[in-house]
Amino acid sequence: MLDNPMWLRDNCPCPDCRDPHSGQKFFQITDLPDDLAIGTLAERADQIEVTWFPDGHRSVYPRAWLTAPAAVDHRSEAGKRLWSAADLTQAPEALPEADWHTYLSMPAERLRVLEAVQRLGFALLRGVPVEEGQVLEVAESFGYVRETNYGRLFDVRVEPAPGNLAFTSRAIAPHTDNPYRDPVPTIQLLHCLTNAAEGGDSGLVDGFHAAALLRAEDPGAFAVLARTPVPFVYRDAQTELSAFRPLIDVDPLGHVREVRFNNRSFGTLRSPGGFYDAYRAFAKVLARPELMLTFRLGPGDCLIFDNTRLLHARTAFEQSGARHLQGAYADLDGLASTLAVLRRTIALDELEALFTGPGTGDYLGEPVTMAEHMLQAAALAEAAGASAHLVASALLHDLGHLDGGAELMAGVDNRHSHTGADLLGRWFGPEVTEPVRLHVAAKRYLCAVEPDYRARLSEASEFTLQVQGGPMSAQEAAGFAALPGAADAVAVRRFDDAAKVAGAATPAFAHFRPLLARLLRG
Amino acid sequence: MLDNPMWLRDNCPCPDCRDPHSGQKFFQITDLPDDLAIGTLAERADQIEVTWFPDGHRSVYPRAWLTAPAAVDHRSEAGKRLWSAADLTQAPEALPEADWHTYLSMPAERLRVLEAVQRLGFALLRGVPVEEGQVLEVAESFGYVRETNYGRLFDVRVEPAPGNLAFTSRAIAPHTDNPYRDPVPTIQLLHCLTNAAEGGDSGLVDGFHAAALLRAEDPGAFAVLARTPVPFVYRDAQTELSAFRPLIDVDPLGHVREVRFNNRSFGTLRSPGGFYDAYRAFAKVLARPELMLTFRLGPGDCLIFDNTRLLHARTAFEQSGARHLQGAYADLDGLASTLAVLRRTIALDELEALFTGPGTGDYLGEPVTMAEHMLQAAALAEAAGASAHLVASALLHDLGHLDGGAELMAGVDNRHSHTGADLLGRWFGPEVTEPVRLHVAAKRYLCAVEPDYRARLSEASEFTLQVQGGPMSAQEAAGFAALPGAADAVAVRRFDDAAKVAGAATPAFAHFRPLLARLLRG
Repeated sequence: MLDNPMWLRDNCPCPDCRDPHSGQKFFQITDLPDDLAIGTLAERADQIEVTWFPDGHRSVYPRAWLTAPAAVDHRSEAGKRLWSAADLTQAPEALPEADWHTYLSMPAERLRVLEAVQRLGFALLRGVPVEEGQVLEVAESFGYVRETNYGRLFDVRVEPAPGNLAFTSRAIAPHTDNPYRDPVPTIQLLHCLTNAAEGGDSGLVDGFHAAALLRAEDPGAFAVLARTPVPFVYRDAQTELSAFRPLIDVDPLGHVREVRFNNRSFGTLRSPGGFYDAYRAFAKVLARPELMLTFRLGPGDCLIFDNTRLLHARTAFEQSGARHLQGAYADLDGLASTLAVLRRTIALDELEALFTGPGTGDYLGEPVTMAEHMLQAAALAEAAGASAHLVASALLHDLGHLDGGAELMAGVDNRHSHTGADLLGRWFGPEVTEPVRLHVAAKRYLCAVEPDYRARLSEASEFTLQVQGGPMSAQEAAGFAALPGAADAVAVRRFDDAAKVAGAATPAFAHFRPLLARLLRG
Repeated sequence: MLDNPMWLRDNCPCPDCRDPHSGQKFFQITDLPDDLAIGTLAERADQIEVTWFPDGHRSVYPRAWLTAPAAVDHRSEAGKRLWSAADLTQAPEALPEADWHTYLSMPAERLRVLEAVQRLGFALLRGVPVEEGQVLEVAESFGYVRETNYGRLFDVRVEPAPGNLAFTSRAIAPHTDNPYRDPVPTIQLLHCLTNAAEGGDSGLVDGFHAAALLRAEDPGAFAVLARTPVPFVYRDAQTELSAFRPLIDVDPLGHVREVRFNNRSFGTLRSPGGFYDAYRAFAKVLARPELMLTFRLGPGDCLIFDNTRLLHARTAFEQSGARHLQGAYADLDGLASTLAVLRRTIALDELEALFTGPGTGDYLGEPVTMAEHMLQAAALAEAAGASAHLVASALLHDLGHLDGGAELMAGVDNRHSHTGADLLGRWFGPEVTEPVRLHVAAKRYLCAVEPDYRARLSEASEFTLQVQGGPMSAQEAAGFAALPGAADAVAVRRFDDAAKVAGAATPAFAHFRPLLARLLRG
């Protein structure tokens, strides 16, 4: 990446380049000088520091950031689990169902449901109150309702002069909704109020899976569909919509990212060429029985599904029978945001529970609890103006102690720094986890290289030093100093050593939640 | 098109294939037999009739439909007028401005404003009440509000701890909004409540024009931007959004259809390759001063613009000065629908005004008014079960008379059938206009080929026959019969001839509006 100075400079994390609060960049890409180049480059174990020519700006990049992988695009097939019906029916726990009240009250359950919509394309909530308008409550539990000409919600039942075949008792073959809309609503919800009619069962087909099958079996047909925008049209007395989009929309990397399929509103494609052969080939893949998951919606069931991916269908039903669903549209980006924030909340709740539960135990041999010790370390880091990841490392450095402190004091090295770093790796990047991992080694290192350091250790710390291997040899110390994260680990170690003051006032864990939230991995 | 049987059959207009009410298709593309072929083909002057192998289904296609051109995709550059600032400032009438109350009360003014948003990418409403929340009234005048994490509307003013640089007094360089959202809001509205601060002027840049310039000047850079999805990110305490989309999104035909440009929320692109050179090349085109239209929003001004195309900007302003805008998002598809329905309404209003105004005049020499005559003809056509386009032709066949009847009775052929057909061509396709054009010729034809036809003509009609050229010769009649639309013209002629009954009850014009609305060109 050092051979791409514009890229590197555009990503400068310093507070002159980015708003520390919002993370937004202050400068435009044209603000960078044409002759921008790396002036001097200092490579350190855990970071690189660049001084820029010609403006002398200074940027510091953590090595862990430089080598981080690209994020996954959750809208394309690259971020999905594709399925056939059997994948979900042969392992009943694979069916993404949940009870509405549990979903509302338990963040972990809400996470599971929303992850299913993102990864599998749908989830089914049971026990949603059988009341009109409730579908909007479901939509608003994860995002924003997309109002359309059908209203904020729409009723799916037999109508006397339907503008849309959905409002008849006819069978509806697998399709995506509103292909004539651009942007198309990316999520659909269907809430069942009554389903007493003979027939009217539901089906779902994974359109991304069907597209992947077509690409494997008939790549020419796939290519035709991906490169042909087709007109979809809808017209009634108050509305006239049209959109020109391909049946299979691929991103510039060739990944499937949207499927539209609806012969009902397919307009007249002029100059069709070989399109119809390809269209029918795709339609035949979509119609394979093994692709369709079938089930019956009962009163109180609410289906949430990705309308850019899943095709939905229903069998015909007896016109005299009562069948009434309410539907609404919403969007995937709002759902993805709710999911990301929920992951943060769950992670921070788990961490906070460690502070308020096991963390209230004695920090063995010291006059503070473990939680007090870690909060003191974080407060010291914050007061010293340490960067956010070091405040976080200081706050979380002894997490591995929380269920192994006694062992250590009994003379067994529980390797708590590694336990803690591994635990934290679920939520944080190496800029947070590695100083935690190395904070014990940093003690052994400082004993070796800083003459009066060892004498200042607390009694308990002097005891555990022996269990942990004693001071490093000169060779070990040189090896440690060269490690990525060594400097950060030493900094954390110094906050750690000073954080053992009985009765010192510190902020509560909640004070650090926003800082931790910003560091949590997306 | 006859060599593409699947295409032809998929477009069968018969009521077994399509719901006559909604126009939606009843069948799936897989319902058509694999060995589908044209069994027999009857080519007539104005339509072709196909009997299908193997199922014997019969389809009739108007020739006018067969050769109709493809509709234009109004979302891509193909449906836009690209501009530089001078294109709009050198001809002041080119600036799409309107008064809010005129816009609300006059359909033609509303049409002009919404067409400007669709074609130029923006319009400016003046005189919108300076009241909070009014921006939602503007959005709801043409479409549906897209609610986001910023709410149904958002306030643009200086905030103490802004999550977004928009909420500071900083200059904001040209950008599109919410590139981290997918689907991105396609319309933005900004309603000015106060702008007393020094600075805070507005700018707009046509991103499609800039992309077209880049394509012409640096096709390699254009290609890199079109094929590279880039991450855009936004994160605050309640929200975490990301989208991977190219800066220039082209449709499968290579037409530009969306531009995203916002360095503030541009995330870290991994493996950038040559992206940054292309990015800066595009940024430099966008920054050309001649591209930016600058103006100042005053209280009561509301800007409506296409957020997939136009970049908007503002200069820095004095932090102590009062500046307060309210913004909202909406979508282009709703606007396009409103525009299409408005075109229908305006067309039908104009037609209805002809019936209730000049149409109330005498139908010269007959015991009915011109409006009564035409309504009788339409009612007869409807009672005979004629297809919709023939009912419309019958209803509108004498429109060309409405300001030229006296001339004809004075012995001058005003060619009213041509005048009427040309007038109708603004709104209807040839299936409606051509029978109107030929209905006088049809009289001359019938006099030639149907022995007792002439004797049944009314006195006035016999008189005008002479002015119009008298009965056709045998050669003329053969030529007429071969014309597209001849059969339809003869049918309309017979309704015309019978529609001269004093005092006959007919439906009002309003009865025919839904039928006419369905025939209006999209």
